[in-house]
Amino acid sequence: MFTPADPSYAERVRRSFARQQAMVLVGAELVTVAPGYCAIALVPRPEVTQQHGYVHAGVVAMIVDSAGGYAGFTLFPTGASVLTVEYKLNLLAPAEGDRLVAEGAVVKPGRTLVITRGEVHAERGGARTLVALMQQTLMIMRGKADA
Amino acid sequence: MFTPADPSYAERVRRSFARQQAMVLVGAELVTVAPGYCAIALVPRPEVTQQHGYVHAGVVAMIVDSAGGYAGFTLFPTGASVLTVEYKLNLLAPAEGDRLVAEGAVVKPGRTLVITRGEVHAERGGARTLVALMQQTLMIMRGKADA
Amino acid sequence: MFTPADPSYAERVRRSFARQQAMVLVGAELVTVAPGYCAIALVPRPEVTQQHGYVHAGVVAMIVDSAGGYAGFTLFPTGASVLTVEYKLNLLAPAEGDRLVAEGAVVKPGRTLVITRGEVHAERGGARTLVALMQQTLMIMRGKADA
Amino acid sequence: MFTPADPSYAERVRRSFARQQAMVLVGAELVTVAPGYCAIALVPRPEVTQQHGYVHAGVVAMIVDSAGGYAGFTLFPTGASVLTVEYKLNLLAPAEGDRLVAEGAVVKPGRTLVITRGEVHAERGGARTLVALMQQTLMIMRGKADA
Repeated sequence: MFTPADPSYAERVRRSFARQQAMVLVGAELVTVAPGYCAIALVPRPEVTQQHGYVHAGVVAMIVDSAGGYAGFTLFPTGASVLTVEYKLNLLAPAEGDRLVAEGAVVKPGRTLVITRGEVHAERGGARTLVALMQQTLMIMRGKADA
Repeated sequence: MFTPADPSYAERVRRSFARQQAMVLVGAELVTVAPGYCAIALVPRPEVTQQHGYVHAGVVAMIVDSAGGYAGFTLFPTGASVLTVEYKLNLLAPAEGDRLVAEGAVVKPGRTLVITRGEVHAERGGARTLVALMQQTLMIMRGKADA
Repeated sequence: MFTPADPSYAERVRRSFARQQAMVLVGAELVTVAPGYCAIALVPRPEVTQQHGYVHAGVVAMIVDSAGGYAGFTLFPTGASVLTVEYKLNLLAPAEGDRLVAEGAVVKPGRTLVITRGEVHAERGGARTLVALMQQTLMIMRGKADA
Repeated sequence: MFTPADPSYAERVRRSFARQQAMVLVGAELVTVAPGYCAIALVPRPEVTQQHGYVHAGVVAMIVDSAGGYAGFTLFPTGASVLTVEYKLNLLAPAEGDRLVAEGAVVKPGRTLVITRGEVHAERGGARTLVALMQQTLMIMRGKADA
């Protein structure tokens, strides 16, 4: 649906993701990168839980914010970096299971701003539960390379 | 301004916070608890950064979401727990400095829902910079103790 | 996908919509009601414009908030009414054209809260442009009939 | 607190407001303009109500979105216009009374984006009730005059 301005967009996303130490800290992994789309997964561990033993909403926010940000970043020209202006997150169910998968998808790519939507599903056995829903505004920072 | 239903509200918040392993993981500390108010601080470390070396927006979200949630929780009756229904977060400046302080404050305490506002400031030397702004909806889960 | 608790849900929505004088004032029309879904249309007139001659963002908000609210309302039991707790709206393009169509769809029907997503498209000739994107939280007010 | 780039900012806001036909339609009135601040009032009439007889949430949204937008606009240079990128609105109490007053205030004026907060109060007799709470992102459209 979207044609990336930079053919090596996936490599650029992977290199950027690898520099995010907070992603390593929480145990997040980049699973899919496609034009206007990104998926990030996380296997729940005790270290990322809140007081009830579920994955902390902040960790859920972290992976879906990043999935949305990188979904936008896939469409950016080289030499530009991505900034999250704001997002709104609804938390729909406890985040627990074998794996959480956060997906971000571009809805509207603009010249300065990019709008995305995000979802987080919890997988357990063969079942998937919608855990969180996001709507996000990104800004393209031209002339400010990501690295 | 607000009168807590439970006089031992501060202790209840501290015990709940202590059970949040994700707060330990990112290095967050509970600094102030008052009726309808909570402040959480974090000293930036490389482990919580994103690709530009600033504190990851998700970590900023984590502490301000928790500050708002515990601000609401101070007003809850015993035997009730708190759930973040949703929040909206604007990121205003890079999160860096000597210390980040996230503050949450109740705007409207309802019977089922509680609305809060949150702010995160970065402190460096004597200066404070507004880093993030939040508006949040909490739900009171009666008959479901926090512990 | 959703099974309404009340088989006469469409009639209930139509009656409620008819009582909204603000909808008459702006010229909004109920076009489709289905389980978990509602569409509302508006033909732009000078009376609903802002300073640049486009339909006012508030009018766009009004029809998409209502479309989301009635999408939720289709699934409610009789004797319950709907309350918008909050929504977040991104405005993506100027609202102009032959007709605006606001669609609301339930994402997650809960026992107390219902989460919806909404979109507004502007139609001109055969073309459709995405004008606004919404994420919304509704509350089911049981024992408080709509009329 | 803020110093407007254009000394005739108040006149510029008043002229722009006067061109908003939707504001006339709902009966909104500009009451205060100050640097980084704007207040808009509305006297409830049957024409702007929803199905329960309260002022429609969309009308509440319309006046607070405009109050926030004009709060930002007071700080813009001449020859620039204002665009609402997005906002998030919590509805806290039924909008009814003698008068609704929507206030918008700039929190962070940026080079491209401006962040505001808004509140709507309902006045009845001497009492004021908080009816709605908003957080908003505006964009400065340089080289695109408002008129």
